Formats: sequence, structure tokens, C-alpha cells
Amino acid sequence: MRLLRVGDVGAERPAAFAPDGSVVDVSSVVPDYDHRTLDSDSLARVAVAVAAGGLPTVELGNVRVGAPVARPGKVVCIGLNYRDHAAETGAEIPAEPIVFMKDPWVVTGPDDDVPIPRGSSKTDYEVELAVVIGRTARYLESTEQAGSYIAGFAVANDVSEREFQLERGGQWDKGKSCEGFNPLGPWLVTRDEFDPSDAPIRLQVNGVDRQSSRTSQLIFDVPTVVHYLSQFMVLRPGDVVITGTPGGVAMGQPDPKPYLRDGDVVEAEISGLGRMRQVFRQA
Amino acid sequence: MRLLRVGDVGAERPAAFAPDGSVVDVSSVVPDYDHRTLDSDSLARVAVAVAAGGLPTVELGNVRVGAPVARPGKVVCIGLNYRDHAAETGAEIPAEPIVFMKDPWVVTGPDDDVPIPRGSSKTDYEVELAVVIGRTARYLESTEQAGSYIAGFAVANDVSEREFQLERGGQWDKGKSCEGFNPLGPWLVTRDEFDPSDAPIRLQVNGVDRQSSRTSQLIFDVPTVVHYLSQFMVLRPGDVVITGTPGGVAMGQPDPKPYLRDGDVVEAEISGLGRMRQVFRQA
Repeated sequence: MRLLRVGDVGAERPAAFAPDGSVVDVSSVVPDYDHRTLDSDSLARVAVAVAAGGLPTVELGNVRVGAPVARPGKVVCIGLNYRDHAAETGAEIPAEPIVFMKDPWVVTGPDDDVPIPRGSSKTDYEVELAVVIGRTARYLESTEQAGSYIAGFAVANDVSEREFQLERGGQWDKGKSCEGFNPLGPWLVTRDEFDPSDAPIRLQVNGVDRQSSRTSQLIFDVPTVVHYLSQFMVLRPGDVVITGTPGGVAMGQPDPKPYLRDGDVVEAEISGLGRMRQVFRQA
Repeated sequence: MRLLRVGDVGAERPAAFAPDGSVVDVSSVVPDYDHRTLDSDSLARVAVAVAAGGLPTVELGNVRVGAPVARPGKVVCIGLNYRDHAAETGAEIPAEPIVFMKDPWVVTGPDDDVPIPRGSSKTDYEVELAVVIGRTARYLESTEQAGSYIAGFAVANDVSEREFQLERGGQWDKGKSCEGFNPLGPWLVTRDEFDPSDAPIRLQVNGVDRQSSRTSQLIFDVPTVVHYLSQFMVLRPGDVVITGTPGGVAMGQPDPKPYLRDGDVVEAEISGLGRMRQVFRQA
């Protein structure tokens, strides 16, 4: 299934694509897609209701699409997880996953405008494969188990302010949690319909290719990341794990580095998961 | 007012101390203490209802006390914010606040057992003053404004696994978000009843003094921290900011460092905010 949320900010309703390509409102089946409902039982009820038909139709052209998960419990991020990105930042290939967090409140719709923070001169883009957790994972015993703890996948833009992240003292989180810094979507593709092992992943700014890779280039692949994280923290339904970005970010370019400016358009895509488009606007 | 939440894990009800020292259930006034209800209007309704009397009484001895905030939107942490703690870790005094995050799911009750993670040999304690946000704060113009964005204060234990934090690659967050690593409580004292500028703060392990300082020793005080954070992220009602720990953590002691072991009892207290007590248990 492809699941999505439609409606104004804070008033989104859960929806799903029907087999005929139409979108139907499933708010009569689940109240929302969140920590209460991203388990396999709830999603099975949605699938049955969509297959049965008769749900109200949503006209996608007339409605905002929100993030496919309501208020994630946490957003866990893996750093430097593609070799070419580690190299362009001057970092060594990590021996084990680098973990940091984003403020869960900064998750926004796939096509919402993103504010460039006041005082920012180095706002940067990072297309990433997002994993949405569907089952509580604690001390998983093997990577083979990891798949069954995943509800599905989406595209994320791990927007980053490099001066805040790297030049203002201490930890990266300061440059990762500005308002609107985690576009997510356009929909959540359930794990039965997407293979995360070798999908093309790309990002364009103003129509120019900036990032292009495949998820097979991840240093730590999806099962490894989920298994690893479960040794350090409890992953719960509705939590989001973003798995790292390939090379091509603005920070990695020759001077003058093409950091994002007011009016820039970022489009990010993973084959099989859809495409999203954000306009960046000075806050 | 002193606000608290009582009941089993996941089924806590909001409560408050009445002027006569008894505790009353206020779930008929607000559904819970969370991002929807920690604004000043909601808390004023609680105060009026408590003053009016007639609410059901809660016998504190017979019920678990939970964290005073349900499911914080985020937990923002300030690092190295007391000079003696910066010195004991070998770090320089920070030029501006160091910011990192904890998984909001790890917030637990003030007296709940805390699991020592599997594979841990360096689980450490950190008593901290916690600030609970009561109003959306975005680009505050001055530190003088900060107070009105605060709902109240509590005691936190920023439990930390030092090997995970410092020796497993990358960022600190990996050692900060293990299950149960953020006891919070025992209650939320509203900002009109607590002065954060010079309160004694202390922590004992098995009855032995380990940390003892005053909040006047913070390098960046509470208004400075709230103002500063609002330049980098949006603070929302129910978000928790923990402001840093004074010297005396296990990591800062001579070898063999007294990291926490199965059965150790940690008691943490800030004068005016109450006292909490956790037993650490091997997971």
C-alpha cells in the first residue's frame, strides 16, 4: 500500500491509494497514522477497507499532502552512511553507524515550503531513505529480524544548516532541528511493496542534478541500521529513521558552495517511493 | 502549583497538589499534561478547579507517580553547562551552549527503576534542572522574554552511558537515549512558584553525596538557554529542556570510576522542586 495524509497543517486525515490509482480517505478506519496505528494489524485493517471500496475519494490536486506519519516519537539519523558523502566532508569512513537526532516537530509535508533560518548562510539539502518503524524493537538478535519491525519507507530531506551544525560548538543537532527541516513523503510505502536494497536515490536543485546514487551504496544497510539502533534505544511504531545521504551536498562542492537561497527549489526522489518538491524561503 | 501525573505506565492521570497538601485528580479539567494543555490558559483552569475543591482525592502512597509531562515533543539537552563539570570531563568552557537531544520516549517517572543497558559498563548519573515549555517560542528577541515561555520546572536525571556516548563513534546521542534514561519529576512546579536563579541541586548514590551545587553556577542560565535555543529551533508547549549537570559524575572520578551497577540507588533533588529516587537494574 501507499499511505498518505491529506489536509491542512495540523488537520491532516489518513488516506491511501486504492488499486485503481485513486486516493481514498481512511479516517473511518484509523484515526491517523501514528504510534498507535502503524502496527501490522492496523495497516491490515486499512488494506481490507480499501479493497472493499466505498470509502470517500480525495482529489489530490485540491489538497495539501502532509507527512505520512503524524508526530513521530523520534527521528533518528545516521550520519556519513555513503562513502562518497563521508569523503566529500573530509570525514573517515565510520567503523559503526554515527547516530544523531532531529526534533520530531520539524517533520513536514513533502511539498511544504522550508524556511531558511534567520542568520543562516549555509542551509543545505540531504536526500535520504526514511524507514518508519511498525513494531517495538528492543535488543534485536539479528539483522534478519529487522525487516519485520519496519512499517514502510519514504523519502526524507535531512535539511541541515552547516554553520549551526559544525561551527557553533559541540554537537550536530543544533543545525538539524530548525523549523521545517525534515520534509517527509510523499507517501509511506509499506514494506511489502518496496525493496530498500538497491533503489536509485537522487536530488535536484532548480532542475540541476546534485545527488544521485543507489541505496546499495549505503555503508550500513537498512537491516543493519535497525538492528544496531535497537541495541542502544527502543524503536517504537511511528518512529522515523533516516539512513544517511549520498555525496553531492552543497557543503561538499568547490567554493562558492551552492547553499540554498530564497526561492530555490529542491526536488528529491527515490524510485518506488515517489518524488517531493520544496521551495526554500527566507524566514 | 505543583502538578503531577499518577497511575500505571501509559495510563497516568493528571493531578495537582491542593492548598491543604492533598493531591487531587484533575482529569475532569484537562485530559493530560502535554503539548495541548501546558499553556497558561489550561493551567489557569486547573488552578481554578483545584481552588474550588470537590475533585477526587489521590492517595500518593498507593499509586505510582509518572513523569509530570506526557510524551514531550522533544527533550533538548545542554552540555557542559557547569564549570566544574566541564573541567572534570577535560573539556573547555563552552563559548556558547552545546545542544544535543534525547529520545522523548525515554522520559519516565521520578521513582521508576532505570535499566542498565545490555553491554553497558559505564552508566552514569547527571542531576539537572528541567524547564518545561508552556508557549511556542520562535526567535525570541531577548532573554527578558524567556520567562513567559516557561510552564514550570522539574528535576531530571540525564542518565548517560559514557562508552556509547564517547567511544562508539560520532555524536553523543547514542549514549543518551537508552530505555528509561530520563527520569523526570517528581512534579512540575509552575514558574510562579520557583526561582531557577540560585537553587541548591544535589545527587546521592547509595546515600553518598556525589553532586552538590547551585543553579547560580550554570554558565548559561535558564533565560539565556531558552532565548538561545529559540534562534535554532521552535520550542513548543510540553517540550523539555534539561540545562546541564554540575560536577561529580562518575566519569569525573578517579579510577575505579563509580559507574552505576545493578541495585544502586540514585536520589536527586533540587530545593523547591522535590526529590526523586531510582533503583538501577541490569537489563
